[in-house]
Amino acid sequence: MTNPETLATLGENEALRRTVSRLKKSENTIVGSGDDAAVVKTSNNRFVVTTDTMIEGHDFNTEWSNAFDLGWKAVATNISDVAAMGAKPTALVVALAVPKETEITWLEHFADGLQAAIDYFAPTAEIVGGDLAQSQQIVIAVTAHGDLEGREPILRSGAKPGDILAVAGTLGQAACGLSLLQSGNQDAISAYDDWVNIQTRPMPPIQAGIDAFEATSMLDISDSLAKDAHRIAKASNVKLTINKQALDGYCARIDDVAARLDLNAIDWVLFGGEDHSLLATFPAGASIPRSFKPIGTVEAGEGVYLDSNPLDARGWDATLSTSQ
Amino acid sequence: MTNPETLATLGENEALRRTVSRLKKSENTIVGSGDDAAVVKTSNNRFVVTTDTMIEGHDFNTEWSNAFDLGWKAVATNISDVAAMGAKPTALVVALAVPKETEITWLEHFADGLQAAIDYFAPTAEIVGGDLAQSQQIVIAVTAHGDLEGREPILRSGAKPGDILAVAGTLGQAACGLSLLQSGNQDAISAYDDWVNIQTRPMPPIQAGIDAFEATSMLDISDSLAKDAHRIAKASNVKLTINKQALDGYCARIDDVAARLDLNAIDWVLFGGEDHSLLATFPAGASIPRSFKPIGTVEAGEGVYLDSNPLDARGWDATLSTSQ
Repeated sequence: MTNPETLATLGENEALRRTVSRLKKSENTIVGSGDDAAVVKTSNNRFVVTTDTMIEGHDFNTEWSNAFDLGWKAVATNISDVAAMGAKPTALVVALAVPKETEITWLEHFADGLQAAIDYFAPTAEIVGGDLAQSQQIVIAVTAHGDLEGREPILRSGAKPGDILAVAGTLGQAACGLSLLQSGNQDAISAYDDWVNIQTRPMPPIQAGIDAFEATSMLDISDSLAKDAHRIAKASNVKLTINKQALDGYCARIDDVAARLDLNAIDWVLFGGEDHSLLATFPAGASIPRSFKPIGTVEAGEGVYLDSNPLDARGWDATLSTSQ
Repeated sequence: MTNPETLATLGENEALRRTVSRLKKSENTIVGSGDDAAVVKTSNNRFVVTTDTMIEGHDFNTEWSNAFDLGWKAVATNISDVAAMGAKPTALVVALAVPKETEITWLEHFADGLQAAIDYFAPTAEIVGGDLAQSQQIVIAVTAHGDLEGREPILRSGAKPGDILAVAGTLGQAACGLSLLQSGNQDAISAYDDWVNIQTRPMPPIQAGIDAFEATSMLDISDSLAKDAHRIAKASNVKLTINKQALDGYCARIDDVAARLDLNAIDWVLFGGEDHSLLATFPAGASIPRSFKPIGTVEAGEGVYLDSNPLDARGWDATLSTSQ
């Protein structure tokens, strides 16, 4: 039996070549990998850009997430920020640093995860550049770009009294999956693998963001519904009230798991992070896209309320991004 | 005496806020830090993008480079890749991961180094987004963007027989500085600090890249004159001949240091990396910008020659970038 090829045995250039060769080309790209920089086309003279880093031991561990999962998650979480601006994801650059004993098959599966997420969420997008380096722990830094296609960017600061608060995507399922993994209860993990999968391979509603062109404000729920609602309330200088009953459907999907782990589903829905769903506000008369579900209202004032009770800005805070 | 504030004691959000507050805003930026993503303006519908990672222990060590140096170098080396496409640097995103005991003053000096390099090389550019995370070793991943302002990108693949080979910027000085640092000879390091500074705070000829719009090919010399000349020869399917005598001026500047360290200046000029100078080819009739010095010729054939002798593709290979 031969030893597996590693970054150290195969060499860095060959390792990178093998990894990049698994990625597809797109029509947006005028110049791709192989020169000093890539050249990317936009449909107008503005582009959207965001960056996010995932670090082993802080943002993930390799016991719960395999290489494919990490590639998928790196793409999904970054293009979610692009979609939260109302833009269509177009181009990504990926900087990856791994220990030198990392097997080449790990790099290949990582590339497959990147490409699978692009195929699923943004088939016209492409990875246009990358960097591979050696480090003590795995570090994944992705920069994602988007095209506004002539639309105005949708910020956090545009919510107005009278607007409707709505959400697209899952709520609490990623936190539920994390609790399952943390429980170490293999029977429960296996029984509820759909929720574990949302944690390791998030499913952000990318098209919903692009469809939400009538939204007055929007953001990507990375930390928690509560915490990110506070971000809109503060940036827009408004009061948000979440209708607790409107969250029943989200709780219903995770109630069984919560009971099994002796936890409360509503805590995951309100304070759980990493669903990468979209929270947006729409004018009362707007046609809200079908993928968005109304969950509350916008009024003059400040703060976030669950029915008539103030809601704390608690949530997940693993990332320190300026672009949250 | 109070203990210095660290990432751990001050908290990650406050640390990031203090760091970002030291950076200036630019006119290219429609939406900057603070939302899901930034929105950047270009003068036409194309933008240039490149990414590069610097890792403690591999690409730098904190004994030789302070925080300001690292911020400077991270900007300089990345916008050098933008300039090597003939584009004007416009916007950067910076993902930084540091150990949790890192002092806040370190982060502030890093930000000052980023901003100082932008002020010096590209005063109309801006850092539009960032990410701060905890890691075991310092990891700096920068993605830089550029505007072609309506020009065509200058690739590695356009050199034609009959063209003139020319270089802008220093050759061998960064390698000379590295040898000085590696020597541990404090007297020599102090006497020749200009060369050490080129290593720790590179001075890429950014404007030369923007001025080189008549160039048929161009790249950033990150690995070595020899290795990067081979990249142009291979991509353009031509033979490059470097005139050894044309390198005398580059050798003259580092001959004294080479003698003191018992090394050969010509080896630094040919095989030393990290000068981040520009190597380009121009048609025979073109007006070559004054910042470029002709050093050779382009002919039909393949390979790279120093006068009539084949030149090996030896050089620095710390980075594994697909966008080299």
